[in-house]
Amino acid sequence: MRLNAFIAGVGMTRFAKHHDKGLKELGAEAVRAAVADAGLTLADLEAAYVGNCAAGLITGQESIRGQVILGALGMGKIPIINVENACASGSTALLQASAMVTAGLYDAVLVLGVEKLTHPDKMRSFAAFAGAIDVDELQEMIASLASSAASDEPGAGQSRSMFMDVYAMAARAHMARWGTTREQFAAVASKNSFHGSLNPRAQFREALSVDDVLHDRLIVEPLTRSMCSPIGDGAAAVVVVSERRARALGLSRPVRILTSVMHSGWNHAEDEPDTVELCAREAFEEAAIGPADLDVLELHDASAPAEIIGYEQLGLCPKGEGGRLVESGATRLGGRIPVNTSGGLLRKGHPVGATGVAQIVELCEQLQGRAGARQVEGARRALAQNGGGKKGNDAAAMLVTILGT
Amino acid sequence: MRLNAFIAGVGMTRFAKHHDKGLKELGAEAVRAAVADAGLTLADLEAAYVGNCAAGLITGQESIRGQVILGALGMGKIPIINVENACASGSTALLQASAMVTAGLYDAVLVLGVEKLTHPDKMRSFAAFAGAIDVDELQEMIASLASSAASDEPGAGQSRSMFMDVYAMAARAHMARWGTTREQFAAVASKNSFHGSLNPRAQFREALSVDDVLHDRLIVEPLTRSMCSPIGDGAAAVVVVSERRARALGLSRPVRILTSVMHSGWNHAEDEPDTVELCAREAFEEAAIGPADLDVLELHDASAPAEIIGYEQLGLCPKGEGGRLVESGATRLGGRIPVNTSGGLLRKGHPVGATGVAQIVELCEQLQGRAGARQVEGARRALAQNGGGKKGNDAAAMLVTILGT
Repeated sequence: MRLNAFIAGVGMTRFAKHHDKGLKELGAEAVRAAVADAGLTLADLEAAYVGNCAAGLITGQESIRGQVILGALGMGKIPIINVENACASGSTALLQASAMVTAGLYDAVLVLGVEKLTHPDKMRSFAAFAGAIDVDELQEMIASLASSAASDEPGAGQSRSMFMDVYAMAARAHMARWGTTREQFAAVASKNSFHGSLNPRAQFREALSVDDVLHDRLIVEPLTRSMCSPIGDGAAAVVVVSERRARALGLSRPVRILTSVMHSGWNHAEDEPDTVELCAREAFEEAAIGPADLDVLELHDASAPAEIIGYEQLGLCPKGEGGRLVESGATRLGGRIPVNTSGGLLRKGHPVGATGVAQIVELCEQLQGRAGARQVEGARRALAQNGGGKKGNDAAAMLVTILGT
Repeated sequence: MRLNAFIAGVGMTRFAKHHDKGLKELGAEAVRAAVADAGLTLADLEAAYVGNCAAGLITGQESIRGQVILGALGMGKIPIINVENACASGSTALLQASAMVTAGLYDAVLVLGVEKLTHPDKMRSFAAFAGAIDVDELQEMIASLASSAASDEPGAGQSRSMFMDVYAMAARAHMARWGTTREQFAAVASKNSFHGSLNPRAQFREALSVDDVLHDRLIVEPLTRSMCSPIGDGAAAVVVVSERRARALGLSRPVRILTSVMHSGWNHAEDEPDTVELCAREAFEEAAIGPADLDVLELHDASAPAEIIGYEQLGLCPKGEGGRLVESGATRLGGRIPVNTSGGLLRKGHPVGATGVAQIVELCEQLQGRAGARQVEGARRALAQNGGGKKGNDAAAMLVTILGT
């Protein structure tokens, strides 16, 4: 969808296992930071879209999550809309808010992505992941994977590594077809760990070598632990404003949301484009740019192979060349087209409902030249890709968003 | 929000304890009916907004509920947005879809409200209700109500009757301040049971006398069982189209969505208007009509007192006159301003995510003169009020929607 909306302010918590903080504390921190960054107050917000995925199963807050979180901040009256699309909940919220602003229905809208995944009972966290797959299909998947599972994580096999099994299958297929190597997957994780080491808000700050990644604990062949995104908590918020409000605020370095395209997954044929390709094609057309015009990207690297496959789906390189692209250093800070400068899901972390919004926080700071040690010099065009859940042989929800200055 | 969108088609399941049907079966029935009613096919839909409240706790399907339900129908690719606002999830979905259409972003959007509340383990159903209150406040409420609770439903006290306790308190306050009587609450339930007896899609078809209602089992003083909405399952769908598409479809009796206003609850002072009053005031202003211009209404009668209080909040009568209004017969079929001709939440049933959409189904059929035995002759203006959850001393989410021909 072609959009004309601006990001007036961004804010986020560090992503981490915040054992001492709940949804309210995490949400409040991100919202206050974003509103202050925009030079606004809470009273200036006309509506709020809140993306969260798992609070029902994790905390019992099955309903009205946004009202509970924002109500604790003293916010009320304004429309609060809770949206959910698994790991793409945050970017789904952003798209709704941006469309409403583009349409002239609001001038200033809050977008909050927030997630509390850690729980003293780890099984609750795992149950939340299982809920992002059609539960009727889940039993079949468990049965079909049980025979081939290489997971050595007792109890985790039916939940967290369910998604990692799906990624591992895609990784093995890519290796078989294109000759992609475990070292290339490890290169993604190593690169993102370097980026994460520069990001104070990343869950993991340690820089890993390719060897470190390869010798980490095996989860599912060929994925080692550091090729898989972790479980964590966090919140990210952005304030979306109309062109009129952006002008009134006198934003010094306004970031424009040019387009956000969303597709839902379905059982497509082998040779049909998947949701990433559909979204990318339309988004580039609507923004009237191509992959070569991008300066920086945040991709949904829930696993390391997903980033390599994502390069190809988004047109950063031809099919089958993704492994070589990361090895060339092109997607590392200082390279031709840096990807996941935040550390990505692998290292910044992946509190699912917050992830899509956090990608926008990173890209916004890049476009405004305030990304510090992670700065991509002169960045003017940025792309975020955020997917969630599983439906048929595809993601359940996929979004590609393009920002520009 | 002032809107300009049309309802091209409506459909719903019967509301009932559908022990043999899941979300997919219920959703499919409503969607197919609405799309056929619109003279469209599934392929004509450009996006879908799906309102559901409790699937995570009831079925484990915490995420991507819309994708799972619509995917089973063979739908894919289009953006599917899951929205949640407790018992107001359905009207929240409608508002989002209508705004997108009003803004010219889509020409044909599906709105589905669907809920599966029954479960072999009744405690799961109760847990879902508890999730519509701030879970941090829940323990305090349970403690404060425990001393005064008159519930004789073992085990239900901490969940279903939690909301009924809230309604009972409001009822007792209304009785104390305005002299409203138990007989007047019973008159609401009796009236709605008469309406429900005429509605093949109602969960309860039995017509009850005022005496029947008064002598039913006591839940919480002054509420007897038939003054409380039941637990049930069901789905309702509408197809929202742009003016352009409405014209192209050659709709014979087009129904226009004039406005839908949404507010979130907060801790307001005693003398401040609550969310119903705020929504009503703005909705009447935006639709440029007043309460006297309405021909038929669907109110959120989760309990019988809520309907009486709703009359006053919506301006159908002065404050304190609600009890006398229902006793006068004015809100009964054939009266001056019929309310809840569907049977309302009390008798048609209240599968929470479906409720807001089902209200629109009823009003649409009324405005199109196809409500059969329940027809309000010459109905031209209709209002739906749908609220959800609890935040502070108010509903968490409230919506008032006005339709016209």
